[in-house]
Amino acid sequence: MIDVSRLRADTPGVKKVTHFNNAGAALMPNPVIDAVQDYFEHEALYGGYETHRKRGNQIEAVYQSLAELIGADRSEVALSDNATRAWDVMFYALGLGEGDRIVTTSSEYVSNWAAYLQARDQKGVVVDVVPDTTAGDLDVEALESMVNERETALITLNHMPTNGGLVNDAIAVGEVAARHDVAYLLDACQTIGQMPIDVREIGCDMLTGTSRKYLRGPRGVGFLYVRDSFADRLDPVFVEVENAPIVLPDSYTLARGAHRFETWEKSYANVAGFGAAIDYAMDVGIAEMWERIQRLASTMRQQLSMIEGVTVRDRGLTKGGIVTFEVDSRQTLEVRELLAERSINVSVSTPFSAPYDMHARSIEGLVRASVHAYNTDNEIDDLISAIQILA
Amino acid sequence: MIDVSRLRADTPGVKKVTHFNNAGAALMPNPVIDAVQDYFEHEALYGGYETHRKRGNQIEAVYQSLAELIGADRSEVALSDNATRAWDVMFYALGLGEGDRIVTTSSEYVSNWAAYLQARDQKGVVVDVVPDTTAGDLDVEALESMVNERETALITLNHMPTNGGLVNDAIAVGEVAARHDVAYLLDACQTIGQMPIDVREIGCDMLTGTSRKYLRGPRGVGFLYVRDSFADRLDPVFVEVENAPIVLPDSYTLARGAHRFETWEKSYANVAGFGAAIDYAMDVGIAEMWERIQRLASTMRQQLSMIEGVTVRDRGLTKGGIVTFEVDSRQTLEVRELLAERSINVSVSTPFSAPYDMHARSIEGLVRASVHAYNTDNEIDDLISAIQILA
Repeated sequence: MIDVSRLRADTPGVKKVTHFNNAGAALMPNPVIDAVQDYFEHEALYGGYETHRKRGNQIEAVYQSLAELIGADRSEVALSDNATRAWDVMFYALGLGEGDRIVTTSSEYVSNWAAYLQARDQKGVVVDVVPDTTAGDLDVEALESMVNERETALITLNHMPTNGGLVNDAIAVGEVAARHDVAYLLDACQTIGQMPIDVREIGCDMLTGTSRKYLRGPRGVGFLYVRDSFADRLDPVFVEVENAPIVLPDSYTLARGAHRFETWEKSYANVAGFGAAIDYAMDVGIAEMWERIQRLASTMRQQLSMIEGVTVRDRGLTKGGIVTFEVDSRQTLEVRELLAERSINVSVSTPFSAPYDMHARSIEGLVRASVHAYNTDNEIDDLISAIQILA
Repeated sequence: MIDVSRLRADTPGVKKVTHFNNAGAALMPNPVIDAVQDYFEHEALYGGYETHRKRGNQIEAVYQSLAELIGADRSEVALSDNATRAWDVMFYALGLGEGDRIVTTSSEYVSNWAAYLQARDQKGVVVDVVPDTTAGDLDVEALESMVNERETALITLNHMPTNGGLVNDAIAVGEVAARHDVAYLLDACQTIGQMPIDVREIGCDMLTGTSRKYLRGPRGVGFLYVRDSFADRLDPVFVEVENAPIVLPDSYTLARGAHRFETWEKSYANVAGFGAAIDYAMDVGIAEMWERIQRLASTMRQQLSMIEGVTVRDRGLTKGGIVTFEVDSRQTLEVRELLAERSINVSVSTPFSAPYDMHARSIEGLVRASVHAYNTDNEIDDLISAIQILA
């Protein structure tokens, strides 16, 4: 059983706000805050490079923790300043060209979607969107027949969209990818830290995620996983001192594995915080948090759907911590601001957040309330009361 | 006149270390430390996105300060996680191809050099290196005749190399670029914050720099400048929610100006610190600091050159804060470690740091001691005494 009072005692922000924006950036627990501040203060007193040399083991341990978190080897993980850049450096390194087909899902995140459009317009890549099941998930059977019918270079999808609670069946997708020997890139930005993730079980070749959302780390850190034997096929867009450790006057040699997507300069204070976030999540227990998150979100959906003038919009057979809804009488931004006046933090999804899905469903905007394991039933009651008043 | 005692009182690190690694990462002053911590603590208490909304003006002011620092317009500057990425996103956006010529200097930084080699190998770009003057600077007359002889797509160089104190004559280069209508990219990573920089005076189309070096900001922040009318010619490699603010199911629209090189997610705590660093530097006075840095570095070179077994290796007519030298009887890493035992921070340059130059000069390694305005003559005396003992 999860010790919620410990989670809350560890989280100074819960005394200030009712935070249902965990899918944006969650409240950091003390071990994360302390790790960032401690590292940063050492830099201020002894110098940035000097601190990095002295604390090399601490930084290396972050990579080890990350690898453990997702069931990967150390050589298969790299850090980035954000999940989008982590995703970009791999997607663009695939070298997709004229006539190459990629297959994706309807609820793809805006930044990935923009990259697909650019690949289509500039390289002649063909973008196929898998139909949804009636429940709203990616239809794995439809995916398989699409991949079966014509050669496909890449299956690329989010694990959980930005604008809804559904969890795509990443493992079933991985089985399709394996059967047809298609490369598989999974965007786990919303699920990492929220639910157990094992890259071997999923069978993806590449996976990306972030620090600031369900892992509760600092902003400005993202990560990538790339399977060892897959990495060496990828030609990174950028080469520099870190991912090309040997540069001679006339030639350079790329690093092997995920390291070919690393960059030299970063905020190591934030990296230290990211490591503390991973260790904290693993210590609390991700499977246990996932169970609680699902229960809390389900309670929230149920209670919201009982309010007249409120429509819950989440789809999917399996649902996670993201709850999206509309309030008939209010604009979404207005709902966010009225809740903020009561120190309740929620977010909004606009048609730009997930362009294909929002247009397909003709949605103008959604209020997004995303719960984490440190949230409580009392906090949900507060949100429900507030929505009842403003609906 | 510069108030050195104020600079030192503002810098907690000077009580712990004698810091001659300002060309790596300088010691941060209190206003920077406070800005980062204050922003970060607000995030911990109220949420990352909520803090960003509440402090939008503070973040916008960082861009305003940056524009003021380099004499640019607000629309011409963007932030990045580091200077190399800031440089990359523009260099790769130029779309250089088969037979396009770029002209650079001998002392180019390893990461830029690696990008040139990649452009040569993958795109067929031709890389020309301008000869040095006998003093060691880029020979501007030679540059002009090279550009005159054959069509050149880009002049790209560092303002000050990583491995020596020379300052290339960026303004004279800008005049050549203007006369021959050649695009001009200046890497000001080592000079920003060290000496006055005005992009209009220099006449560059693009310029990049970093927070952590002579500006004394936090690690993990870089920036770029791109001239407004030039930016719209550039096609960014990555598109995402930030630099393509309108993404529809079937099309996207790029942001204008430098904004097309921005990325959505970053560490805003570090951005706040970067802003404080710029404001602090402008408040102290960059021209005044530049004068003091040159004098201190000159003193250091003079005293080092008087020690038997020590060779100062800096070149250039105009010299700045980077002092490089060899100690005959010691490996460079050994020198760094022996000085570290005395709490004196220096860095080393390896043959990989600036591949062309280090090989051309057959240098195995250099000790790099880089001074800032907060350093003192007493600190130089301490370094000299330490080197005398170990030389």
